[in-house]
Amino acid sequence: MRFRTSAIRPIRQLSTSSRPPTSGLRINPDRLWETIHETCKWGSAHPYGKSPRETGMARLCLTDDDARVRQWFATEVEKLGCSLSTDQMGNMFARQSGSLKSSAPMIAMGSHLDTQPRGGRYDGILGVVAAVEVLRTMKESGFRTHYDVGVVNWTNEEGARFPKSMCSSGVWAGGIPIQKAWDLRDIHDSSVTLNSELERHGLLGSIPCDAKSGFQLGAHFELHIEQGPILQNTGRSIGIVQGAQGYRWLTFTVHGRDAHTGTTPLNARKDPLLAASRMIAVSNDIAKRHNALASTGVFKIPSNASTNTVASEVTFTLDIRHPQDDVVHAVQDECLKSFAEIASQDGQGVSFDWTLDTDSPAVQFDKGCVQSIQAAAENLVGPGKWMNMTSGAGHDSVYTSKHCPTAMIFVPCRDGVSHHPEEYCSPGDCALGAQALLESVVHYDQTKKDAEGA
Amino acid sequence: MRFRTSAIRPIRQLSTSSRPPTSGLRINPDRLWETIHETCKWGSAHPYGKSPRETGMARLCLTDDDARVRQWFATEVEKLGCSLSTDQMGNMFARQSGSLKSSAPMIAMGSHLDTQPRGGRYDGILGVVAAVEVLRTMKESGFRTHYDVGVVNWTNEEGARFPKSMCSSGVWAGGIPIQKAWDLRDIHDSSVTLNSELERHGLLGSIPCDAKSGFQLGAHFELHIEQGPILQNTGRSIGIVQGAQGYRWLTFTVHGRDAHTGTTPLNARKDPLLAASRMIAVSNDIAKRHNALASTGVFKIPSNASTNTVASEVTFTLDIRHPQDDVVHAVQDECLKSFAEIASQDGQGVSFDWTLDTDSPAVQFDKGCVQSIQAAAENLVGPGKWMNMTSGAGHDSVYTSKHCPTAMIFVPCRDGVSHHPEEYCSPGDCALGAQALLESVVHYDQTKKDAEGA
Repeated sequence: MRFRTSAIRPIRQLSTSSRPPTSGLRINPDRLWETIHETCKWGSAHPYGKSPRETGMARLCLTDDDARVRQWFATEVEKLGCSLSTDQMGNMFARQSGSLKSSAPMIAMGSHLDTQPRGGRYDGILGVVAAVEVLRTMKESGFRTHYDVGVVNWTNEEGARFPKSMCSSGVWAGGIPIQKAWDLRDIHDSSVTLNSELERHGLLGSIPCDAKSGFQLGAHFELHIEQGPILQNTGRSIGIVQGAQGYRWLTFTVHGRDAHTGTTPLNARKDPLLAASRMIAVSNDIAKRHNALASTGVFKIPSNASTNTVASEVTFTLDIRHPQDDVVHAVQDECLKSFAEIASQDGQGVSFDWTLDTDSPAVQFDKGCVQSIQAAAENLVGPGKWMNMTSGAGHDSVYTSKHCPTAMIFVPCRDGVSHHPEEYCSPGDCALGAQALLESVVHYDQTKKDAEGA
Repeated sequence: MRFRTSAIRPIRQLSTSSRPPTSGLRINPDRLWETIHETCKWGSAHPYGKSPRETGMARLCLTDDDARVRQWFATEVEKLGCSLSTDQMGNMFARQSGSLKSSAPMIAMGSHLDTQPRGGRYDGILGVVAAVEVLRTMKESGFRTHYDVGVVNWTNEEGARFPKSMCSSGVWAGGIPIQKAWDLRDIHDSSVTLNSELERHGLLGSIPCDAKSGFQLGAHFELHIEQGPILQNTGRSIGIVQGAQGYRWLTFTVHGRDAHTGTTPLNARKDPLLAASRMIAVSNDIAKRHNALASTGVFKIPSNASTNTVASEVTFTLDIRHPQDDVVHAVQDECLKSFAEIASQDGQGVSFDWTLDTDSPAVQFDKGCVQSIQAAAENLVGPGKWMNMTSGAGHDSVYTSKHCPTAMIFVPCRDGVSHHPEEYCSPGDCALGAQALLESVVHYDQTKKDAEGA
């Protein structure tokens, strides 16, 4: 009997739902919450309130604090009876055998334990700790999936210390050459590489970091905070992530001529700062028309700038995003056309050039994984409380989706704030996310068995 | 006989005019050109061509090079029979007695010998060297003005090393407290003050730096390169400066909220960089409608800016100018109104505050001085080759005008470029400017005598 309801301890009800879980299992919200914050003692930083838990995190990849939480992770999953494998990028794969003793690759729940230097307690952390909670719940209930399941802790998702985000899922997926990843240098100490830190902590495993020849995955479910305000603003508690937006990052350099602001008539100027301002304004107008995103995060002028001098050159970035690649391209094309018009609009005109720094096409997650999450969400919160979403940020799941069925679950975070010490996901939302993760994996496992007639 | 035409040596004709000068005197264009460039050996920097004279200048105030050119100046004016006075700010006043032996304050020709760190060979320098050439021409011709005439070299006009521009004419005029000026620190070495450098070079004179109790001036004529392109673009060779524009410098700080560019919908953002861009664009539109100037020279975002983060705060400057103060105020008022609208335009809106950093009301130069320059220009180049102008930049004359009749003569500089190594004024334009300076002073001196019946 798979649903051993008799084994369920009388734990606190999930506040967000009164429906019985399909699996018959209930995660333990208090244990989940305690584990999140207990493990955040490693890397706790940037207090913003009086409670010792009112802090952010600075657990940069492969620091001593990251090594300590990895040690905790290893101990915990081994206690739960998992086998633990570490690959050549330090990615940690905990595997729990299923009842079928199948050799099929495990159904994974994965995310990351590293943080930004001024990060919070939920980004990545929730996904790994909730996965451990799922295994704990299964174990204490005597519940076994058909196929092997497990947890992955991906190395250097943030790219904050070693500057390459989604670094080791990227190597695993074949998107980043391993030597390039190993050679990444600590941004604050160039004598230290990612490889040397893996060695120092004994995390340089022997298993190839490769989706095909290394540790293979049968599926990848990732629970993550939304990092945006949509769920909160629409009153939903679960986002079913259908894929990731396509995005292109461009850098524009606008060339003009430095001139005295008091002695140079407007019609004699080549003012790149004015032109760049008009370009940024119009890029926003264009994005709005396409229901896309266009954002300028970086704006640089020469260091000798002064109030009474027209700058000679201005550089700014443009980040264009939309779930459909053709819309991303259309926004870019319209921006380039409008920018050319603006370049000749004021005074003697300016010139500009641009580079494409990043081209990340849109990603569609796996229909089967999405259906499993949808079944879980429908059952847990009912219609109107979940919604389909597209991930705006990059995640390890973007890389895993290239090699195995993948989808993500989003839960709300307060005001959409992340990468900030005050990042916050409520105990109820953490618990709901973990329960949805459990249900999704159980549903996917069952569906797979039904389909394969195993 | 005042006009001793017999004394005029057969020197090269001024290329820009074939009319006989009213004064009967002709400055020596070659000597002027040689003196400009010979004295530029002190502080020569930033070569841009093969000739040793194809360089800019870095003769910062009260450096050893500035002390050397001041020593040259002192020697030259004493050779010409001038008495030399140095006041408590190191301002140097060379005085040549007139034929009337009047005790009236001298009619001065003034400018400055210090330069920007990446400056040129004409800004300020032309005004002082041309004044010396005027005295040389008068002396070799045996010509004497009725009233005393002379040259002023003002200290620290540029404010590049000790950060206060028009510093010592400002002290002289009572606009800047002397202690504040003395205490200005070298921007590269805070152990050095303007006062300590005056002492080191023996330039800390005993005469008060004060228009009333110190070295008084009866008038102030300043020859200067235009530092703008208007003369060149309109084919004129002399600008008769009627006054200086009013200007106000404001700094705006726009407050928003940092957010992930991939996960934050446009309508959920508080994007200060976008708002600032729209503000800068609209300030230009408003200035155009008023035929005024509005310029943003400085634009700052936090140092942790990144392509995929909406900045939390943006700071930018706004420099508004017009010859009439009421127009400057109208532009400011319209900008503030439009900025308030823009602040609520996108997403969740932004807030902003602002400071008024500089308020420099418009200045009207003296009608008598202007008429003397006009008479000189009309005679030297004829109608259609001179024009009335307003100075866009600040000059020592702005301060002297508060205490004595003042006006300025502008000559063209190539493409309006100044504060740049390639700043250039042709030999013909330098000579024409010096001749106009001579004629203006002679005309003013004669007019004064006629008026006073002396």
